[in-house]
Amino acid sequence: MCKLISDSWKIIQVGFSAEKNRFFESIMSTGNGRMGLRGNHEEDYSGDSLKGTYIAGVYYPDKTRVGWWKIGYPEYFAKVLNAVDFIGIKVAINGETVDLAKCRFKDYRRELDMKESILRRSFTFIGKDGSEFKINTERFLSYADGDLAAIKYAITSLSGEAEVVLTPFLNGDVRNEDANYNEKFWEYVASGTDGSISYITSRTLKTHFNVTAAFTWELFGADVLENKAVSENGGEFVGNRIRTKIGKNGTVTLTKYVSVISDRYYDADKLADIAREKALKAKETGYQGLFDAHRAKWDNIWSMGDITIKGDIKAQQGIRFNIYQLNCTYSGDDPRLNIGPKGFTGEKYGGSTYWDTEAFCLYFYLGTREPQIARSLLEYRYNHLEKAKENARKLGTRGALYPMVTMNGEECHNEWEITFEEIHRNCAITNAIKVYTEYTGNKSYLYEKGIDVLVETSRYWVSRVTYHPTKKVYMILGVTGPNEYENNVNNNWYTNRMVKWSLLYTVDTLEEMRENASRLYEEAIRHLGVTAEEVETFRKVSMNMYLPEDKERGIFLQQDGFLDKEIVPVSALKPSDLPLNQNWSWDRILRSCYIKQADVLQGLWFLNEEYSLEEKKRNFDFYEPLTVHESSLSPCIHAILAAEIGLREKAYAFYLRTSRLDLDNYNNDTDDGLHITSMAGTWMSIVHGFGGMRIKKGELYLAPFIPEQWEEYSFRLVFRGRIIKITVDKSGTTIRLEKGDPLDILLFDQRMRLTPGTDCHHVHS
Amino acid sequence: MCKLISDSWKIIQVGFSAEKNRFFESIMSTGNGRMGLRGNHEEDYSGDSLKGTYIAGVYYPDKTRVGWWKIGYPEYFAKVLNAVDFIGIKVAINGETVDLAKCRFKDYRRELDMKESILRRSFTFIGKDGSEFKINTERFLSYADGDLAAIKYAITSLSGEAEVVLTPFLNGDVRNEDANYNEKFWEYVASGTDGSISYITSRTLKTHFNVTAAFTWELFGADVLENKAVSENGGEFVGNRIRTKIGKNGTVTLTKYVSVISDRYYDADKLADIAREKALKAKETGYQGLFDAHRAKWDNIWSMGDITIKGDIKAQQGIRFNIYQLNCTYSGDDPRLNIGPKGFTGEKYGGSTYWDTEAFCLYFYLGTREPQIARSLLEYRYNHLEKAKENARKLGTRGALYPMVTMNGEECHNEWEITFEEIHRNCAITNAIKVYTEYTGNKSYLYEKGIDVLVETSRYWVSRVTYHPTKKVYMILGVTGPNEYENNVNNNWYTNRMVKWSLLYTVDTLEEMRENASRLYEEAIRHLGVTAEEVETFRKVSMNMYLPEDKERGIFLQQDGFLDKEIVPVSALKPSDLPLNQNWSWDRILRSCYIKQADVLQGLWFLNEEYSLEEKKRNFDFYEPLTVHESSLSPCIHAILAAEIGLREKAYAFYLRTSRLDLDNYNNDTDDGLHITSMAGTWMSIVHGFGGMRIKKGELYLAPFIPEQWEEYSFRLVFRGRIIKITVDKSGTTIRLEKGDPLDILLFDQRMRLTPGTDCHHVHS
Repeated sequence: MCKLISDSWKIIQVGFSAEKNRFFESIMSTGNGRMGLRGNHEEDYSGDSLKGTYIAGVYYPDKTRVGWWKIGYPEYFAKVLNAVDFIGIKVAINGETVDLAKCRFKDYRRELDMKESILRRSFTFIGKDGSEFKINTERFLSYADGDLAAIKYAITSLSGEAEVVLTPFLNGDVRNEDANYNEKFWEYVASGTDGSISYITSRTLKTHFNVTAAFTWELFGADVLENKAVSENGGEFVGNRIRTKIGKNGTVTLTKYVSVISDRYYDADKLADIAREKALKAKETGYQGLFDAHRAKWDNIWSMGDITIKGDIKAQQGIRFNIYQLNCTYSGDDPRLNIGPKGFTGEKYGGSTYWDTEAFCLYFYLGTREPQIARSLLEYRYNHLEKAKENARKLGTRGALYPMVTMNGEECHNEWEITFEEIHRNCAITNAIKVYTEYTGNKSYLYEKGIDVLVETSRYWVSRVTYHPTKKVYMILGVTGPNEYENNVNNNWYTNRMVKWSLLYTVDTLEEMRENASRLYEEAIRHLGVTAEEVETFRKVSMNMYLPEDKERGIFLQQDGFLDKEIVPVSALKPSDLPLNQNWSWDRILRSCYIKQADVLQGLWFLNEEYSLEEKKRNFDFYEPLTVHESSLSPCIHAILAAEIGLREKAYAFYLRTSRLDLDNYNNDTDDGLHITSMAGTWMSIVHGFGGMRIKKGELYLAPFIPEQWEEYSFRLVFRGRIIKITVDKSGTTIRLEKGDPLDILLFDQRMRLTPGTDCHHVHS
Repeated sequence: MCKLISDSWKIIQVGFSAEKNRFFESIMSTGNGRMGLRGNHEEDYSGDSLKGTYIAGVYYPDKTRVGWWKIGYPEYFAKVLNAVDFIGIKVAINGETVDLAKCRFKDYRRELDMKESILRRSFTFIGKDGSEFKINTERFLSYADGDLAAIKYAITSLSGEAEVVLTPFLNGDVRNEDANYNEKFWEYVASGTDGSISYITSRTLKTHFNVTAAFTWELFGADVLENKAVSENGGEFVGNRIRTKIGKNGTVTLTKYVSVISDRYYDADKLADIAREKALKAKETGYQGLFDAHRAKWDNIWSMGDITIKGDIKAQQGIRFNIYQLNCTYSGDDPRLNIGPKGFTGEKYGGSTYWDTEAFCLYFYLGTREPQIARSLLEYRYNHLEKAKENARKLGTRGALYPMVTMNGEECHNEWEITFEEIHRNCAITNAIKVYTEYTGNKSYLYEKGIDVLVETSRYWVSRVTYHPTKKVYMILGVTGPNEYENNVNNNWYTNRMVKWSLLYTVDTLEEMRENASRLYEEAIRHLGVTAEEVETFRKVSMNMYLPEDKERGIFLQQDGFLDKEIVPVSALKPSDLPLNQNWSWDRILRSCYIKQADVLQGLWFLNEEYSLEEKKRNFDFYEPLTVHESSLSPCIHAILAAEIGLREKAYAFYLRTSRLDLDNYNNDTDDGLHITSMAGTWMSIVHGFGGMRIKKGELYLAPFIPEQWEEYSFRLVFRGRIIKITVDKSGTTIRLEKGDPLDILLFDQRMRLTPGTDCHHVHS
């Protein structure tokens, strides 16, 4: 028996199954924004496992593999690296190695406590002679100090006296599972151990990131009978071998204090010294002290971002899991970092940044954390502006085209239809500026940095459009929209519409700056070299952008010629056809009408205020039945729009599709890691969907309803220095200002003032 | 000094340059349809060289490399293999190795005599002591027995007595330059040498083709002082070491008789015996005897296919080079073989079959060789019909879709926009059936085998079209046309038009068979399971095929939306933009109006009789200025159409672009090998272009003109048992029936009877 138990705060595995090991390793992942770990065992495990230790920002440019090279492809593909294994503790009891792939054991239980962000594990090891030993482990990656981790490993003899040999170690000889030809991406730099403290420094090939891990240890409950420094495999394996003895019912506990640092934060020459110092200091503080500081940080996170759901324990577990993993992935204190689609939980997608960040994750961090966390995400793109300009030049265009996939600002993806043509990503980045500015009410980023991004992306657009002299419109030819099941189409409505908006936002922002922030305006005009003619061009292209539509149906056309396809709803397909991407050849998918993820509808979400409910309804009714949602980023947009147009059951159904995507292994791919970025979409489904949250003319707007299946739910919003808790039950909505000054908000178009200590109630009509 | 000398029958290199070595190796390539060799040196050459020995039909399925896998991609990519090096003779004179990358030498000359198909080379080796030795080599691959090669290596001492050590060998330890990670594709099977005869058998990995090379030898002009069998490198290098002495002005000549056979033709277990027997037999026949038989075959080829050009020695050399190389590549006696774009001259394009064969090469072989040679090309596709059906099924369609690139009938290309979408290839294959049938007047292939291809490809088309219920037409969505600078377009005119034609040709052929060949008709209907309804569907789809056009301009539209592009002629581009595929990113190429190779115009060539001169003119005038001809298959179609619509200077200009493509290294890629398939296009430019040759209602039609730059040219046509020689000079055209029975032909729409011994003259108007 091996199963996942529902619990409001914990992810609980009861029983162990080798077949499900990768799945549980994924969902037991932890992180602190600076590093992350899959739920690997500390002791040896010789069975199937995806070992994963990931250090934020430490990547490797693997050589791009491609059948047929195209001009403009990147030479290298950045991938996140499996780094030094620092959790390892070899365990031998009475000479027998504890390895759950080989030894006898029972009562396996592993639980990730999300409230405290700690991974606990217990099982009973059964020796060859039948003697039994209870093993309890726990570990956490400190959220208070991103460089630290602590591991506790306790063994209790249930049968009689036993010799226990514990070998805590660091192993630098690690590989990526997705390496071509099993190459190694690390080179050994130095290591050392004196039996008390051990360290190892490794350097990534090509990128030359130096990473040092160090650890020291403590033993409780038994005497150290022997302790021997161990250095093997040319120094890539270092640690120490501790021999001890325990009596019946005696418990020995090894605590491992680990620091992991890189030259992204510290002087490369001093890494070994600093890491050792940090580990020693951690030991001085002690396990409990470290844990208390760590837990305080998580208490704070939950106080801002928790969502409660009553009457549905699985939903409660699911949403907390998503909030938890998003916070593990990104802590927002370093604008050089970003959010990979799998976070620190696997190797897929190379750990790189996609438009997922701006289109989905931003909303989550804006709503649940201090505004500087979201701002870090914007700074990331601002800091990459020069590289985006290079990228545009490489493609024969002007201005800035942000990469589709990146680690350091350079493009690192190489499918022409995506790399060169999925250019709408620029608009997600400019839209994020608007979203951030509207939500925070703070224009400093917009005026000081965002304007550069707006102007340079506008320059790209005016160099990328095609003027049609007889139709007197601007077209955008040869693109791939958000729906990647169409490639190289002309006039994707979403792209054209967002470009039209983005150009106008640039023009309007310049206008606004000229009026309200003349010094910053002058400065921007000067360093960007913007001329009046150029601004006029931005406006002209925006005003005359061609937007395909079908007047008869009253819908926007996903792209030119979309209605030449055979239009048959997904519901008419054979179940064996789905998912299309595992059953149909690419050409068949492309010429079909089926939509991978929200495309026209994504535009109706981003430009939500500019369209009437009727327009949203007509387009939803046309496109939703054609959508296969084969991206985990699709259901949330549909959930939000369905909620808005009153299709509550549908909204809930869409919410369900991602709420427990990984926990229920919905796509049968949790083994590879978690869908971190789509977790933000689930949050959006609740807050923007069920909660109806919008910013309307600078004001917070809410229009909540409760899904029939729930008794009550609540979410919090961090909004302009306040924490606002919204609780919705069958009878109505209660809004409480938990922190901060009084505030006017709109609830169903009714303005109300939130004041401390007084709940606002609204009864469902 | 190292240069290429113009000559009417020879390719002559005078002087040697290491930088130009690959270029000359390419253009000195020889072949006999069963195997081919680049112009590598027999003796050691340690400088830069592309070693190339290729055995027809011996390929290797290398693992497909692709960044992002799509359903339907082939797992493997067949590539032609560099095989056992059988030309090698190590040479040491007075203890010094002859290696032109290291030793001193002068008077280097290499010439490929195309009339006799023999490669000769001479140079003077200068020893460290200043002594000089004249070296003369020659070799040929027998066209009389495709398994045989003979090599003569002569050394004359110009200075004084010298010790000469000659080591003729076979080396099985060979690699492909394009191998991923320098893998080896061969495994050693067996080898042996007794100093008199040596052999080696190697087997390809995965495909398990066994290839055996064997050789024996003779020495003339000096005594064998010592002869030692040599077997090194685990048997992969076998041969013998012959020590001899020559006096001043003495000449020693080593003759190497080689046989190279594979289990494609012989029992795998007997390869070594057979190869050794064949080599011994060749020695018995003697070098001169082998050469005489070989030359007789080439005399025959030239008697059928020679083209003469007076007044332009470079043009003369160029066209003979093309005719020569095409015959080296394909001898037409084995329908399992086909024509790789680089023939036996390099590794690129994997040696696989493309639509080049049917769209270009077929015309050449039809016009210059016995009809069974062309028929072999058709049989090739007939034999692959089952695999084409599998391919269609794999893509979710019915009937047969031939692969874009293949070695054995399976698809082995993996760019989705080509593999899955460049489906017009089916039509080149059905058009070839029409071309062959019309040219030969022989319907046996059409009725017995071609009909299967017609019906199965028709079945594919009716499963691939999309019916548009309001426009009441059939569309073909998501294709790539011949112009590969457009991907995934809707309603490519060429594709739709050829499909319309192909369906109708199927219907008409079935009708004709019913009337004229009822037994074959019944048999076809039965084994194909054709129903009347199905034939009606073929007809209905053909009749209602949508063909995009622009009525205002009076042109056919390359695809839907083509006129939304910015239309600017190629002449307005900066020279630095060209070639586009080396200067522009792929998206920029795709959204531009620029055309890689004839697309609409390719259709006007295939369906030449169905369109008026006016229609051809309007389309030519519109599309030609937008065409960059970045495929070597483009200029010939333009030359033919330009000639037809009276643009003679333009026709000549297009002819020039490929006539000496490789000799003049026009695309700077001759190093990689020769453009074999486009050589057929050059032949077409002369015969169909300048000569105006067509088959009109079953009759041979000619409408020749002579380019101003020439004094006279002539070409021969093998036509229905006759050889017809057409000579065109400034005054007019002379037609002579060189062989066969009297025949009526059309010359400028005037019917005339050709009779043996009487020339027909026509004076230019």
